[in-house]
Amino acid sequence: MPGTSILEAAWMAGIRLSSACGGKETCSRCRVVILDGDTSPVKANELKALDEKDLNRGYRLACCTYALSNLNFEIPEKSLAGDVRLQLDGLTETSALDPSVESFEIQVQPPTLEDPRADIDRVIGWLNQKKPGALYPDLGAARQLSSAILRNNRVFTAYIRSREIIGFAPQGSPPLGVAIDLGTTKIAAWLMDLVTGKELGALGELNPQVQYGDDVMTRLRYAINGSGTGGGGKLTGSVRDIIREMISRLVEGAGRALGEIADICIVGNTAMTHLLLDLPVRQLGFSPYVPSVARSLDIKARELALDVSPGACVHLLPGIGGFVGADHVAMILAAGIDLTERITIGLDIGTNTEIVIKRPDKDLMMSTSCPSGPAFEGGHVTDGIRAVKGAIETVRLTRDSVEYRTIGDAPAIGLCGSGIIDAVAELYKWGLINERGRFKRCERRVLTKESGTEFTVAEGKDGKGRVVITQKDIDHIQLAKGAIRAGIAALMEKTETAPEMVEEVVLAGAFGSYINIANAVEMGLLPWFANARYRQAGNAAGLGARMALLSRKERIRAQQIADRTGYLELTTRKSFKRLFAEGMMFSKKV
Amino acid sequence: MPGTSILEAAWMAGIRLSSACGGKETCSRCRVVILDGDTSPVKANELKALDEKDLNRGYRLACCTYALSNLNFEIPEKSLAGDVRLQLDGLTETSALDPSVESFEIQVQPPTLEDPRADIDRVIGWLNQKKPGALYPDLGAARQLSSAILRNNRVFTAYIRSREIIGFAPQGSPPLGVAIDLGTTKIAAWLMDLVTGKELGALGELNPQVQYGDDVMTRLRYAINGSGTGGGGKLTGSVRDIIREMISRLVEGAGRALGEIADICIVGNTAMTHLLLDLPVRQLGFSPYVPSVARSLDIKARELALDVSPGACVHLLPGIGGFVGADHVAMILAAGIDLTERITIGLDIGTNTEIVIKRPDKDLMMSTSCPSGPAFEGGHVTDGIRAVKGAIETVRLTRDSVEYRTIGDAPAIGLCGSGIIDAVAELYKWGLINERGRFKRCERRVLTKESGTEFTVAEGKDGKGRVVITQKDIDHIQLAKGAIRAGIAALMEKTETAPEMVEEVVLAGAFGSYINIANAVEMGLLPWFANARYRQAGNAAGLGARMALLSRKERIRAQQIADRTGYLELTTRKSFKRLFAEGMMFSKKV
Repeated sequence: MPGTSILEAAWMAGIRLSSACGGKETCSRCRVVILDGDTSPVKANELKALDEKDLNRGYRLACCTYALSNLNFEIPEKSLAGDVRLQLDGLTETSALDPSVESFEIQVQPPTLEDPRADIDRVIGWLNQKKPGALYPDLGAARQLSSAILRNNRVFTAYIRSREIIGFAPQGSPPLGVAIDLGTTKIAAWLMDLVTGKELGALGELNPQVQYGDDVMTRLRYAINGSGTGGGGKLTGSVRDIIREMISRLVEGAGRALGEIADICIVGNTAMTHLLLDLPVRQLGFSPYVPSVARSLDIKARELALDVSPGACVHLLPGIGGFVGADHVAMILAAGIDLTERITIGLDIGTNTEIVIKRPDKDLMMSTSCPSGPAFEGGHVTDGIRAVKGAIETVRLTRDSVEYRTIGDAPAIGLCGSGIIDAVAELYKWGLINERGRFKRCERRVLTKESGTEFTVAEGKDGKGRVVITQKDIDHIQLAKGAIRAGIAALMEKTETAPEMVEEVVLAGAFGSYINIANAVEMGLLPWFANARYRQAGNAAGLGARMALLSRKERIRAQQIADRTGYLELTTRKSFKRLFAEGMMFSKKV
Repeated sequence: MPGTSILEAAWMAGIRLSSACGGKETCSRCRVVILDGDTSPVKANELKALDEKDLNRGYRLACCTYALSNLNFEIPEKSLAGDVRLQLDGLTETSALDPSVESFEIQVQPPTLEDPRADIDRVIGWLNQKKPGALYPDLGAARQLSSAILRNNRVFTAYIRSREIIGFAPQGSPPLGVAIDLGTTKIAAWLMDLVTGKELGALGELNPQVQYGDDVMTRLRYAINGSGTGGGGKLTGSVRDIIREMISRLVEGAGRALGEIADICIVGNTAMTHLLLDLPVRQLGFSPYVPSVARSLDIKARELALDVSPGACVHLLPGIGGFVGADHVAMILAAGIDLTERITIGLDIGTNTEIVIKRPDKDLMMSTSCPSGPAFEGGHVTDGIRAVKGAIETVRLTRDSVEYRTIGDAPAIGLCGSGIIDAVAELYKWGLINERGRFKRCERRVLTKESGTEFTVAEGKDGKGRVVITQKDIDHIQLAKGAIRAGIAALMEKTETAPEMVEEVVLAGAFGSYINIANAVEMGLLPWFANARYRQAGNAAGLGARMALLSRKERIRAQQIADRTGYLELTTRKSFKRLFAEGMMFSKKV
């Protein structure tokens, strides 16, 4: 396939080969091992990224390599972006059921010469016995009606949203809903019964847009540069495809039908929702990072190529501003930060980290977003991986050894976010790195190699499975934590909140829920608030999506949150650089 | 092209070869002349339809003929369904302007770090100065916004429908609207300025569905039998294509842009609107002829594949019942039959004829539909043609000769509807046919041939251009007029209206506007109402569409007409057969 790199070919074939730079030869994530066949010569960027040993073992960067014959190659597990452990659960509170879709069991009489009313008038006539007032059909529902009448022998279920008849289903089909947390890296979806409020299934998948870049900015650039050649279209299409597939699998798993899905609620950051809706993103990709639309939207699911009840809508929760999107609103909603009487800081740490501060004493909420990067999800870290089987998730140092636990108790293949936090915290506690994050070379366990200084977390066996943390990794982690700490500090500065005033810290998201909070404070990812209690809220954004799916009142509350919450653009703060530099330090100082 | 008849091949090539039966070998309308090449053998149905002379001259039925080599063939003008004179004008009254779309000139400030609001919030902020209250964007409009801002240097026009922002256009673009009268045979479209109410252009086209059958029932059968093989899809696609094309030509002719079209209003009979919307028609094709939807609908134009302002809607006026659709409501609206204090009968004579009776003294309106067939539009009549150039439109007999006038003063090629009325009326006046419609063979001018009895209207020259009326033609005309008279009589019977009570007769539609009313009464197409005045209302359905396009109040009035008007199913009347038989008679008796 001349002109097509192995990376592109793999993507086209649906293989989720990892890439943080979107194929720009800079991230070195797409390593493959060529087993057999002729390839294009090794490029300069590969020589930088791969050491001699790797090259001798056949390692190449898939983005730099072109097949000159039929090829056999192996994709190491680390290069594969798949099968990630997702945080599907959130808080367990549920609000009162008040779904936007009602269902009615209908029995219509056959038309006769004496009663030749239109099919839809026959249905509305029946419905008006139970729900008086004007009703009207969605066009798709109207198309479905005649066969619904015929197939079900004139006894069937109608779904109504407000005053619109949106679809029909066989007798006794309570309407279903799907809630989706559309993350930059992960997508979580829940199938819910809109009548009982019960969860009928849950699924997690990697966001296939990861192919086009790990972080939001890389994807936006891909979409902007690719406009005309379908850059945005690919990002839009791939995420719609996976959502459609997830909905199908959920419905199949529950033994139900797609036509019974009468409502969908989606949350995501601004870039994710823009790409899903195919909204323009050019203005979002450059300062001052302006969304096209930030308010809530109701869109017919068919306009997003989703195959559900014909007139069903997708409800997108509102966002706040910049990249602070609907997922953040959903997090505030689910964690109840808008309702609390405590001075609260809420964080959802991810590739982008959103932070909110609530000052009930000032009747104030303010949010910001920091580009913390994928370091805590395994990106830009030598042996960093996502939370897959074999990932080291906890680390403890003793005087002489390293104790660790891996996901699934499998042989170690790398470090996931919580493992990285633990490892760095332990290195700092044991004095192997200093406050500025520099390895102390004099320490016995710190190895100095040609490639740099490093610490071995797992030795591995037979030259395989060795897991290290390098000075470069620490640098990346410092950048990430610096951004997050700068965000927290800027919000506190802006709202005149002193550390001792903070009463509660809510940590949402998979990462925030799995980390050892003491270690996160120890290595300075989180500030030390003397009077605060810490709460790990799980996937609060996902829970917020389910709450809004099940209740119109929660949708109104979400809109109120969006309206009430101020947006702080971090990069405009004069103090940002100072706060960022301070935030990079390894210390408990706020 | 084996397996494909010349008729089908012509249709595929976009040639509008005439067919009343939809290719079922029964109507004999699709005559072609084979000039050169090998064809399949002559079929039995062709031997019935064509006489020896025709066969010797190379005539074949295109539906029966398959090419066995490259073919050269000629399509006689009579077999071509094209370039028809349409009735585009209606009454000239216009109601107060109250369009459903408003426009606002907008000037937004560029986003800054201090004001990073979403683009749409910037627009809504500006709009709220002039139009307070909640506004929200259509998804298509939201997609259009960023480029609208960039291209127009932040000064542009917004179109708003109720509270929805539906699209953007360059500065100073008043919104346009399109009104469409979607007839079984003809489609008329008007481009209107929604701010001034002025007409910017008008166009008439044949309904391309004519390819699949002249009358509504043939097309419905085609759609029903073709489901799964795209029967309905072809009918739906072809009419959407021509509407899209007509809108393009209108906009181009007016020097405007498609994106400025912010509203569309469509009227048509029930079958036409169902096929346009791709609604199910199976239940409409069989007794009791039940529509899927009869009420008014607002549908995004993009759902009908029409390329206009992104969030613009198509408004379909409501219908009454059975085949009595939105065009009839529009006719009542434009002719003011709902408002009149006179006892009134309104007729729109076409392939389907709709009739309404208004009894203001009883606060009653009632409508019916009769399948009058295409005889008055030239169908099922030997030399019947549509109102094209060369069609005989008036006929007068003297003792020794026939005087006639053709459209465009061209050599006669056939008889159009008004010519047929005149000819039959004159034949009856001069006693050449009797009350039962039989030619008097004893009359000198009545020729008796092997093929039947006939009268020569035009002699033609050199064996070409001879135009006749045969006994069979009279039979067809009798069936058509019988149906119409039965409809009128049934309505009068049901509403207990005596002939002398009728104060006004409104004739709408092209045919009703061009005919000589005295002759129509003479030959008994219309009853003789001693105390009635006759009003020829032109294309009242089209005018009604324009009125509803320009005014929301007229849309409400249309809904009131649909709600108030009873529907009479003709075929259920016990008296129908008797009324039909009586109506076939040539006499003035009511």
